[in-house]
Amino acid sequence: MKKEALFVAKIGGNIIGDKKALTSFLEGFSKIEGPKILVHGGGKSATQLANKLEVKTEMIDGRRITSAENLDIVVMTYAGLVNKTIVSELQNSDCNALGLTGADANSILAKKRPVNFIDYGYVGDVVEVNDGTIKMFLNQGITPVYCAVTHDGKGQLLNTNADTIASEIASAMSKEYEVSLFYCFELQGVLENIEDKNSVIEHINLKKYTELINANVISDGMLPKLQNCFDALQKQVSKVHIANADFINDSRTKHTTLSL
Amino acid sequence: MKKEALFVAKIGGNIIGDKKALTSFLEGFSKIEGPKILVHGGGKSATQLANKLEVKTEMIDGRRITSAENLDIVVMTYAGLVNKTIVSELQNSDCNALGLTGADANSILAKKRPVNFIDYGYVGDVVEVNDGTIKMFLNQGITPVYCAVTHDGKGQLLNTNADTIASEIASAMSKEYEVSLFYCFELQGVLENIEDKNSVIEHINLKKYTELINANVISDGMLPKLQNCFDALQKQVSKVHIANADFINDSRTKHTTLSL
Repeated sequence: MKKEALFVAKIGGNIIGDKKALTSFLEGFSKIEGPKILVHGGGKSATQLANKLEVKTEMIDGRRITSAENLDIVVMTYAGLVNKTIVSELQNSDCNALGLTGADANSILAKKRPVNFIDYGYVGDVVEVNDGTIKMFLNQGITPVYCAVTHDGKGQLLNTNADTIASEIASAMSKEYEVSLFYCFELQGVLENIEDKNSVIEHINLKKYTELINANVISDGMLPKLQNCFDALQKQVSKVHIANADFINDSRTKHTTLSL
Repeated sequence: MKKEALFVAKIGGNIIGDKKALTSFLEGFSKIEGPKILVHGGGKSATQLANKLEVKTEMIDGRRITSAENLDIVVMTYAGLVNKTIVSELQNSDCNALGLTGADANSILAKKRPVNFIDYGYVGDVVEVNDGTIKMFLNQGITPVYCAVTHDGKGQLLNTNADTIASEIASAMSKEYEVSLFYCFELQGVLENIEDKNSVIEHINLKKYTELINANVISDGMLPKLQNCFDALQKQVSKVHIANADFINDSRTKHTTLSL
């Protein structure tokens, strides 16, 4: 029996921070028929609030360390302002959105990242996606909208990478759905030359991925994103794309398609 | 046919701000069997954040005016930090909580309060509670946890009184459930003498309510709360109580019971 199609999209920080681009994306997203899920980052909102509150944001090797104070800021901005703004805009476009953290309905369980050389603070790694609960929401015509916050089931909220959440949700839902996963951001896809926005690499398979890493074509931020893409493909997600947010309104837009 | 029992509790701001009292309340709440709903205010969290951000909080006749900047703060604190902290604590107590604003799953529709003499800003008055959606959550063993934020269905979030949300939810759910509504806060109930915390008035009916108003026994903050209580009773809510948060752990605690 053919599985039902499920569309999972993740929108990145620079789209969140650009009101016009966000509204355009959400209008396109709301028009997608059938079950769908949105995952969003927080963009610069957390850093901006941290700066205003004079809370120090510590970075180690380009990664944010989530102190207790930083976690509060992440929860306020990601789960509060950003998530609810998106939900109310989607409702305006007749998309029955439901904003969630992983704590809500215990839908994404994580564990605090263990301290090895670096203590990342209140950062969570996904342990389990409760696909039954998410399916129940979808069956009710509800569109789950996940922010980058999960919990450990013991009362602790955890800051969790949105790309990883999207990959883990897409993978978990692949048991029952034919899942397409779209990472949407401000670029057109993976670029051959970061200086040339039109140098989109249209197809990347595992072999090409290794070649690109060896040739240092893939930059720091793109590495974990691509890893999340291949993780999803290896866990039976049908299609994975990296695209500009405009792709949702015009599927002819050049983009990157991943395959194993 | 006897309707199924539904427990609706609202916790006030001073409980939210008292970590020990909040945890004790949530532990008691999680132990209540059968379907239940929690509604919470935001306490001083919004004012504290506004002060830190140097955002002016304008009050007219003791009521907060919700500017666009204030609304962002309300959404960050109520829907973000306070709501998700409560949800993750309830999950830790094996209560399958789902944090919501009225925008989520379009569950509470409101309209921006019209400007007459005073412009309250982004303040919403409840228009409709989507009892079907809330019942669906309850049927799935989910405990909805509502903060004091709704939406107008047109993309605008609105700051909405938590006491009113609790009353409106309790009323809407009374079509299908035998609803008990508890307003839990830091006092023991309605006090005969505000200076004497033990002077609880144990029963107030509509006649007594009028007498208390005429005798100026009921203070400013208690007036709208009692009005919400009587609104709920008039809309078929079975039982309405005003009690200390400890009541949830010890039903022998003295409290106020309302009746028509």
